[in-house]
Amino acid sequence: MAPEGWRGRRAEFAWAAFALLWMASCRGQGPGEGTRPYEAFARDLLARGLRSEGAYAVLERLTSQAGPRLTGSPAAETAVRLMRAEMEELGLETWLEPVTVQHWIREDEAAAVILPGKGRPETRLSIVSLGWSVPTPSDGLRSGVVELKSFEELAERRAEVPGKTVFFNRPMDRTSLDTFRSYGEAAQFRARGATEAARAGAVAVLVRSATQRVDDFPHTGMVSYGPDALRIPAAALSTQGAERLAAALKADPELEIRLSFNPQTLPDVLSSNVIGQIRGTERPDEIVLLGAHLDSWDLGTGAHDDGAGCAQVVEALKLLLESGLRPKRTVRGVLFMNEEFGASGGRDYARAERRSSERHIAAMESDRGGFLPVGFGVGGKRRALARIRRWDYLLALAGVRWVGPGGGGADIGPIVERGAVPMGFIPDAQRYFDVHHSALDILSSVHPRELELGAVLLAVMAAVVAEEGI
Amino acid sequence: MAPEGWRGRRAEFAWAAFALLWMASCRGQGPGEGTRPYEAFARDLLARGLRSEGAYAVLERLTSQAGPRLTGSPAAETAVRLMRAEMEELGLETWLEPVTVQHWIREDEAAAVILPGKGRPETRLSIVSLGWSVPTPSDGLRSGVVELKSFEELAERRAEVPGKTVFFNRPMDRTSLDTFRSYGEAAQFRARGATEAARAGAVAVLVRSATQRVDDFPHTGMVSYGPDALRIPAAALSTQGAERLAAALKADPELEIRLSFNPQTLPDVLSSNVIGQIRGTERPDEIVLLGAHLDSWDLGTGAHDDGAGCAQVVEALKLLLESGLRPKRTVRGVLFMNEEFGASGGRDYARAERRSSERHIAAMESDRGGFLPVGFGVGGKRRALARIRRWDYLLALAGVRWVGPGGGGADIGPIVERGAVPMGFIPDAQRYFDVHHSALDILSSVHPRELELGAVLLAVMAAVVAEEGI
Repeated sequence: MAPEGWRGRRAEFAWAAFALLWMASCRGQGPGEGTRPYEAFARDLLARGLRSEGAYAVLERLTSQAGPRLTGSPAAETAVRLMRAEMEELGLETWLEPVTVQHWIREDEAAAVILPGKGRPETRLSIVSLGWSVPTPSDGLRSGVVELKSFEELAERRAEVPGKTVFFNRPMDRTSLDTFRSYGEAAQFRARGATEAARAGAVAVLVRSATQRVDDFPHTGMVSYGPDALRIPAAALSTQGAERLAAALKADPELEIRLSFNPQTLPDVLSSNVIGQIRGTERPDEIVLLGAHLDSWDLGTGAHDDGAGCAQVVEALKLLLESGLRPKRTVRGVLFMNEEFGASGGRDYARAERRSSERHIAAMESDRGGFLPVGFGVGGKRRALARIRRWDYLLALAGVRWVGPGGGGADIGPIVERGAVPMGFIPDAQRYFDVHHSALDILSSVHPRELELGAVLLAVMAAVVAEEGI
Repeated sequence: MAPEGWRGRRAEFAWAAFALLWMASCRGQGPGEGTRPYEAFARDLLARGLRSEGAYAVLERLTSQAGPRLTGSPAAETAVRLMRAEMEELGLETWLEPVTVQHWIREDEAAAVILPGKGRPETRLSIVSLGWSVPTPSDGLRSGVVELKSFEELAERRAEVPGKTVFFNRPMDRTSLDTFRSYGEAAQFRARGATEAARAGAVAVLVRSATQRVDDFPHTGMVSYGPDALRIPAAALSTQGAERLAAALKADPELEIRLSFNPQTLPDVLSSNVIGQIRGTERPDEIVLLGAHLDSWDLGTGAHDDGAGCAQVVEALKLLLESGLRPKRTVRGVLFMNEEFGASGGRDYARAERRSSERHIAAMESDRGGFLPVGFGVGGKRRALARIRRWDYLLALAGVRWVGPGGGGADIGPIVERGAVPMGFIPDAQRYFDVHHSALDILSSVHPRELELGAVLLAVMAAVVAEEGI
């Protein structure tokens, strides 16, 4: 970029003059009136949000004061108290609703070593146990290793598996722009790998981390044990660890490894969804829901997943309150507990007695990282999409240039099943899986402006839908 | 993000089946034929680019082997040799063209201290001298300070200025989505501040760094001395330094500072633009130019500004070569020297004798950072924009969702004046000014996938325009 000090002054003056004229023409109108309804309202929210970067400040408090918030943990309860207090302080109507959550804990750090042999020294590999994993025996688990790239290869080489650790070494595809699709492909080995390997007689499973980077940070996530399969210990290997193990296997297919980790599954505990709302002035029982999940994985501090979403929901409600607009329908923020271990927060919310007197007209979820918003998705009937498209000039103010089908999410799924229109911004996802479910998912990986733009979009669209309906 | 192992399998199969059918239907066609011309070609470039992340590899070599590449410096000449060798090795036709460049050097590190007084200890402030700045006296420059927010305030408080250092402490606006606009407003104090302050009798000028972050990294850039004004020493203060100095001035408006830096302006030297091209098969004298600038500031390694653009140009040519497509017109990459100290590379390129037998039909410049592409700009006549819009489905493949007026740049300005249509992708700019012209502009601030998407867009659009014309 060259210095531009002397240039473009004329265009600036013209712009300023235009803005003044335009502002003058809008005076005395309500936010939803005029030729471009809500535009002045949205511009005001955008400017206030970007100036204060309030979502980042909330996220800073959440990640530093509660830290990693594994479902069922004391830190998750700290997060519940903290976020309710944040909402209370804003002047929202707040309450907690009970959620039954699973309680799985890591104890010591997981360890994996390639045992010495054939002139090879003992080599340590970076691993983490997967959520739900059973422990290894207390003195570790020693076995040979079968490296596989697919479930098809597992079927073909089934005879080699009994007594071994199956090592799924399928790199996450880099070639698609849609990283969520690539993630879905890679994560199936994490989810189903233990079950399929156990059926073939494996004693443990190691999966390559679902990230497109090659580094030494393992990425965790859930293992899903099939009902009829033996539960074998399951862990994720960093991508560098995976490449190191693959190279060692190439040199010595008979090598052995020792795995050792001791996570424990404890009895379920009672936790909470955290709720804060701005009551509707005319139809308080019609709800526009803004959702995110408060629990996180325990390696980083869940800054993107999903501290970012929680911070955006709180910030969106704050921006709305400060705007002075009090929509006809209720705008409700719900910070769901326990998305990562089975989404019981979303289910318990939808089933609660209190829901019977409410009607949720729309639900927006932010759970794809706190990155730059690039699009806006609307689900449900086609008409809903057409209705939301009327507001595309508001979305464009925060940089969103396309509106299309989409907008679901794990936490709002149950309330969408009861008729809420799912909608929400789609952030860019080129960087998400670099940090997702790993020790890299910390505050410094979130950018204050990118995060804030999401909060502004949630606030603007919640206000418009709560005022105008769908 | 919840685990999704078992879901979405049916959709994947349907997609794969569709892709196979579609690929079969395209067989035997050239890349520009069929109902969506160049789509298979573009998909191939995208997949190859994202798999290899080749642009990042080029950038890694440039930033590590040449490092900071201040115009006229030995490192800039290393960069010339290195980038020509990169292009030569790809099999491109390469040459150098001479450019006369300015030669300004920093000697010792710049220092600024608030002198002790009124119970205040000596306080060091982070500063860097601005490009073109004259040195302070060798024993430093001691003076009082007048803090100002605008040129209007300078006019009002003119009587206070003689003998003082003027401190322009105008924060870069955060509230606009268009950070380049906010930058332009803030950078005018850097560009014109010294001239305006000197006219009022100031002995030096300090400007708050043009960044939206508050941290201790000063951001440099050019000072532009007016022809009739005394040349006074000029430096940028980190934003934290600016806030510290402002607080100290509030407590003690009479405080003094001492500035000390000794940059030198040396005689002009001869340097080079680096050129590599794929010669057109039918109209070799019609040129589609891909441009970026090879020089950088000297605080970081110019990774975003504009190592990113250079890496994208080289990678775009590589992707094109590998595709096997040999367009009718020439696709030429030009790595311009000396954008930062006056854009003489762009001027000398346009004036070169060799240009008289050439016709540049389009010019694309990448010099807005190696971030996620979000839009595509086309300048020149309106018809050009309409013609390029025909290819919007190709742009969408790499995530670009809008095509509009735009596409200029400092280096390609002179060749655009001679009739080339300016065009190019617009990357997201929410993070650019965090690092721009500072020690933070290093490789780790660039993301391999974001960078590569720009290279893919340059390659695809260069190929299409070189084959089809505008």
